[in-house]
Amino acid sequence: MNQILRIDTNQKGFSYSEADDSLAIMGGRALTSKIVMDEVPPTCHPLSADNKLVIAPGLLSGTTAANSGRLSVGSKSPLTGGIKESNAGGLVSQKLARMGIKAIILEGKPEGDEYSLIHITKDGVKFLPADDLVGMTNSEVITTLWDRFGEKVGVACIGPAGEQRLTGASIQFADPKGNPGRAAGRGGLGAVMGSKKIKAMVIDDKGCERVKPADKEAFSALAKKWAKLLTSHPVSGQGLPALGTAILVNVINEAGAMPTKNFRTGRFDKVENISGELMAELIEKRGGIIKEGCHPGCVIKCSQAYHDKNGDYLTSGFEYETIWAFGAHCLIDDLDAIAEMDRLCDDIGVDTIDTGVAIGIAMEGGLIEWGDKDAAIDLVKKIKTGDPMGKIIGNGAAFTGQALGVDRIPVVKKQALPAYDPRAVKGVGVTYATTPMGADHTAGYSVCQNILKVGGDVDPLKKEGNVEISKNLQVATAVLDAAGLCIFVAFPVLDSDDGFGMIVDMINARFGIKMTADDVIAMGIDTLKTEKAFNKAAGFTKHDDRLPAMFNENLGPHNVTWDITDDELDSTLDFE
Amino acid sequence: MNQILRIDTNQKGFSYSEADDSLAIMGGRALTSKIVMDEVPPTCHPLSADNKLVIAPGLLSGTTAANSGRLSVGSKSPLTGGIKESNAGGLVSQKLARMGIKAIILEGKPEGDEYSLIHITKDGVKFLPADDLVGMTNSEVITTLWDRFGEKVGVACIGPAGEQRLTGASIQFADPKGNPGRAAGRGGLGAVMGSKKIKAMVIDDKGCERVKPADKEAFSALAKKWAKLLTSHPVSGQGLPALGTAILVNVINEAGAMPTKNFRTGRFDKVENISGELMAELIEKRGGIIKEGCHPGCVIKCSQAYHDKNGDYLTSGFEYETIWAFGAHCLIDDLDAIAEMDRLCDDIGVDTIDTGVAIGIAMEGGLIEWGDKDAAIDLVKKIKTGDPMGKIIGNGAAFTGQALGVDRIPVVKKQALPAYDPRAVKGVGVTYATTPMGADHTAGYSVCQNILKVGGDVDPLKKEGNVEISKNLQVATAVLDAAGLCIFVAFPVLDSDDGFGMIVDMINARFGIKMTADDVIAMGIDTLKTEKAFNKAAGFTKHDDRLPAMFNENLGPHNVTWDITDDELDSTLDFE
Repeated sequence: MNQILRIDTNQKGFSYSEADDSLAIMGGRALTSKIVMDEVPPTCHPLSADNKLVIAPGLLSGTTAANSGRLSVGSKSPLTGGIKESNAGGLVSQKLARMGIKAIILEGKPEGDEYSLIHITKDGVKFLPADDLVGMTNSEVITTLWDRFGEKVGVACIGPAGEQRLTGASIQFADPKGNPGRAAGRGGLGAVMGSKKIKAMVIDDKGCERVKPADKEAFSALAKKWAKLLTSHPVSGQGLPALGTAILVNVINEAGAMPTKNFRTGRFDKVENISGELMAELIEKRGGIIKEGCHPGCVIKCSQAYHDKNGDYLTSGFEYETIWAFGAHCLIDDLDAIAEMDRLCDDIGVDTIDTGVAIGIAMEGGLIEWGDKDAAIDLVKKIKTGDPMGKIIGNGAAFTGQALGVDRIPVVKKQALPAYDPRAVKGVGVTYATTPMGADHTAGYSVCQNILKVGGDVDPLKKEGNVEISKNLQVATAVLDAAGLCIFVAFPVLDSDDGFGMIVDMINARFGIKMTADDVIAMGIDTLKTEKAFNKAAGFTKHDDRLPAMFNENLGPHNVTWDITDDELDSTLDFE
Repeated sequence: MNQILRIDTNQKGFSYSEADDSLAIMGGRALTSKIVMDEVPPTCHPLSADNKLVIAPGLLSGTTAANSGRLSVGSKSPLTGGIKESNAGGLVSQKLARMGIKAIILEGKPEGDEYSLIHITKDGVKFLPADDLVGMTNSEVITTLWDRFGEKVGVACIGPAGEQRLTGASIQFADPKGNPGRAAGRGGLGAVMGSKKIKAMVIDDKGCERVKPADKEAFSALAKKWAKLLTSHPVSGQGLPALGTAILVNVINEAGAMPTKNFRTGRFDKVENISGELMAELIEKRGGIIKEGCHPGCVIKCSQAYHDKNGDYLTSGFEYETIWAFGAHCLIDDLDAIAEMDRLCDDIGVDTIDTGVAIGIAMEGGLIEWGDKDAAIDLVKKIKTGDPMGKIIGNGAAFTGQALGVDRIPVVKKQALPAYDPRAVKGVGVTYATTPMGADHTAGYSVCQNILKVGGDVDPLKKEGNVEISKNLQVATAVLDAAGLCIFVAFPVLDSDDGFGMIVDMINARFGIKMTADDVIAMGIDTLKTEKAFNKAAGFTKHDDRLPAMFNENLGPHNVTWDITDDELDSTLDFE
C-alpha cells in the first residue's frame, strides 16, 4: 500500500516498487519535490526525455478527513525553468490513495508522434491508442472517457495547448460532475505531459478498498472535529461557500490592491460588473449552482456552476484570480465574457492566470485595445488552433511580452503575477518574489493577515512584519500541500489554537506514527529547501527572487511602492 | 578630440563631455563594455529607459591603419539578458573618430510612439522627425538618407524588426556603396534602438579633419608595414579576397564540422550547391563584384556584390555563417535562395545567424519541411509585416523553439550557435560556452588553430589544448575589438612574430603613449572581466556557460561528442 508507480512513456511499460523508508511519511508536494530533485537533472530541457512528471496524492488523501483530496503534480517547469508543484482538485488524488499509490512517475519520451491514453487500474497499467482523443478539448476528452470507462473514473488530461507543448499549458482534471474545471494550471506542466505524448490518464480505483487509518477510531474522531472546524469559520464556512473565491473581487478592490490595467492602479472603477455578488446573483437567476466541492469530501465548496444567459452550463472553478486576470487587468468588465474565457482556458488547457495576464500584455503592446472583450476572446480561441498568435499567448505573459517588445511585464521567474498587487499586499509580494515556484499567491497567501485579518493583523501597505508572515505561510503551505489539504483550511487553522495540531494528529492516526508539530513543520521547511536547491542547481540566483522594476512605480489609491529590500527578500527563506 | 556624446532620447537633447582619464586609452568594445557596466543597471529590462546603447569607434579607427574601421555597439542584450558588444563595418567608425567622438551614448526612452532620425555633424545633434522612414527597409532608409544628406554620410538604422523590438533585430550600417549589408547583428541591439524610437542615425563628418596620430611619422611607417602584413598572408591576402568567408563552406564541410540538419551531422551532402567556389563563379558570370571592403581602408576585401540570375544586385556581406544557417542547417542547397534570405534579413534588420537557425528550428518543430526553401523565404518575409509567425522567427532560435515546443535548440545564453559544430571544432565550442556574449564564433575564433592551422595546430576533435586556445583568442579578440581592427587581421598576426607588436606600436604612435604588449593584453583581460561581472550581476551563473544537452549526441562523420568538462569550461576565463 505504499507503491511508486513508474511509467516508461518510451517503452510503454510500467513497474511498481515499494517506496523506500525515506519517502514513508512524504506525500503531495513534499514527495513530488523530493522525487524531482532526486531524479531530474536540474539543467535538462523541461521537454526532454530527462524530465519527469510526478503525480502524488497527499498524506491524508483518500481518508475521511474533509478537504484532503488535493493532488500535487511536480516536474521541472517549462515556464520557469525551475522546480514546480502545481496543485489541483478533482478525483485523482483520493483514487490513487485508495489504490495504494504514493506517486506516479511518468518517465522518458517516445520517439514518434503518436499519443497514448494511460489506463490505470488495480490490475496494472495499459497504454491505449489516443488517436481519437488528439485535438479534443478537455471537456470532450472527459466526456469521451467517462462514456467509455464509467462516470466515476478519475481523469487527468491535456488539451490542444498541452499537445502544442506551450509553456502556459495546464493539466486538467475531471471534477465530480465531469467538468474540466480543476487544473494543475501553473508552470506549463501540460507541456511536459504533451512532450511525453500522453493525452490523458484514466485512474480507476474499482475494487480498491477505502483507506484504513492505522488508528481508525482516533482518526474518525479527529475527522469529525476537523470538519466542524472548517465549517464553523466565517471565511471557510460562510464567505467561500456563498460567493466562491469571487468574494475577493470587492474585498481586494476595496483594499486598493486589485491590479488594474497591467498593475497601473489598485482599484477598478467598474468592479461592480465583475463582483462575486453579481456572480451569485446571475447563478441564482440562471439556474446554476452556487456551491460545489472540487473533490468529494470538500465541506467548503467554493466552486460553482456558472450558467450562460440561456441557462446552459458555461464554467466552474471560476476563481477570483481568473476574473481579475481577464477583468480588471485587461479593463474588461463583463462577467459573461470572462466566464467564456475561463471555459476556453479549461477546454484548451491553459493557465487562466498566465493567459489572462498575457492578454493584458497584448493590450499593453498595442495588439488589441484595452477592454476589448471580443478581441480578447478571439485571442484565447487562437490558442486552440495552433495559430502563431495563439502560440504566443499560450506561452504565457513573459513570452507574449517578448514577442511584442513590451518592457512592462509582471512576472517573477517568468510566471505571471496573480491578482494581488504586491505593493498593496506586501506579504503576498514577498511570496511572489521568494517562492521557488515563480509568482504564486497560493505559496504563501498573506491576504489572510494583510486583508482578511485571519491569523493576525499585519498592515498590507507597510513593510513591517510582511517578510515574517510570508515565511511562516510558505512553510505552512508546504505542509498543507504535503497533506493533500485544500489551502483554504488555512483560514480556520490560523484562527484556532488547535487546528494545526489536528492536522498533525490526523497524519499520526493515519500512519500510526508519532510526529510532533515541529516534525511536521520541519517537513515543510525541508520541502522548501529541496525546491530552492533544485532551482540553484538549475542556475537560479537571488536575482531571480525579485519583482520586476515596474513595481517601483507608485500605486494608487494608497500611493505605495515596493519597498521590501533585497536583503529582506534574501532572508525570507534562508533556513541555513 | 576625446568626447563622449550623450543623447537623451526622451528630452531629445544632447551633451558633449570630455572623456575622463580612466577612458583615455579605451576604445571599441573595451569602452562600450566599460560604459554599459558603469551606467546600465544589470537587472534592468533591456527595452526599458534604463538601458543604453553605446556606439564606439576603435582606438585605431579613423587612422590610415588598414582594416581599422570596425565599430563596437554595446548594450544590455534583449536576446541574452547579458552584456553585448556587437561589431560592424560600414562608415560610422571612421567618421566618429574624425569627429573626435569616442562614444555615443543613447539614453532614456521617449513616452510617445514617434520615431526620430538623429543627425550628427560637427555642429551638434539634431532630432528630426522620421515619420517618412518608419516601416522602411534598411535599403530604403539608406537610399533615402543618402539622397537627402549626400552619398558620403555614415548611416546606422533599424528595419521593421527593430521597430517591432524583436530580440533578433540588428542595427544595419551603410557600406561604402550604400548597401545595408553591414550589421551589428547579434544580440538584438536593433530592439534597443527601436525601444528608444530612433529609426536611423546619420553621421556626417563634413568639415572634420583626418585623425592625426601623435607620432605621425612612426604611425605612417607602421601602417605601411601593417598593410603589407595583411596582404601577404595566404588567408587574408588570397583566400578571403578570392571567395570571401564562403571559402569556409568546403573547408568546414571537409573537416566534418558543418552542422547539418540542426546539428545532426557534420557534413552536408549537397555542399557543392552552396560553396564559395560556386558563389565566385556565379558572381563572375552575372557581373557582380568578387571583392569589396566593408569599410574604406580595408585591404582584405572579403565582401562582395552577389547578383541575381538577371544580373541585378541582390546582396553583399554574404557570409559563410549565413550560407550555413539557411543552407546546411536547414538542408537548403540553393545559393540564390540563401542569398535572397540574406538580403531579406539585411533589409528587415535581423541577425542572419539567429534567423537562419530559427528557420531550422521551425523545420525541427514540423512547421515547415526540411529543405523547403520557398517556405523558408516566406517565413523570413513574415518578419517584416508584424505577422505573429514573423514575430516568433524574428525573436530568434531560442524563442522559436519555445513557441513550437522543441527541446533540441542549439543556443548558449539564448543566442544561436553559429556555423561550426562544437564537437568537431572544440576550441570554438569552448568559446561558444564561455564568452560573455552568448554563442559567438567571433569571440574566440579557434577555427584558426583547429582547422586552418594558423597560429598553431590543435586537434579540433580532441579536447587537449582547446581551452587554452579559446582563452588566448578571447583575450586577443577583445584587444582587436578595442582597437577597431577587423577580426581577420588575426590570421597574419597569429602567424607572424611581430604582428601583435605592430598593433601595440600603432596604438602608442596614435596616442603618444608607451603601452607594452602586456598592458594591451591586460586591457583585453579587463574587458572580459568587466563583461563577466556585468553578467554575474544580471543573474548569470556558471550554468549559463554550458552547451545544451543535444551536444552529448554523437556527431558524424568523426563520431565525436562534446567532452570538455564543466570544470574546464569554468577555468577558461577565470582570471582571478
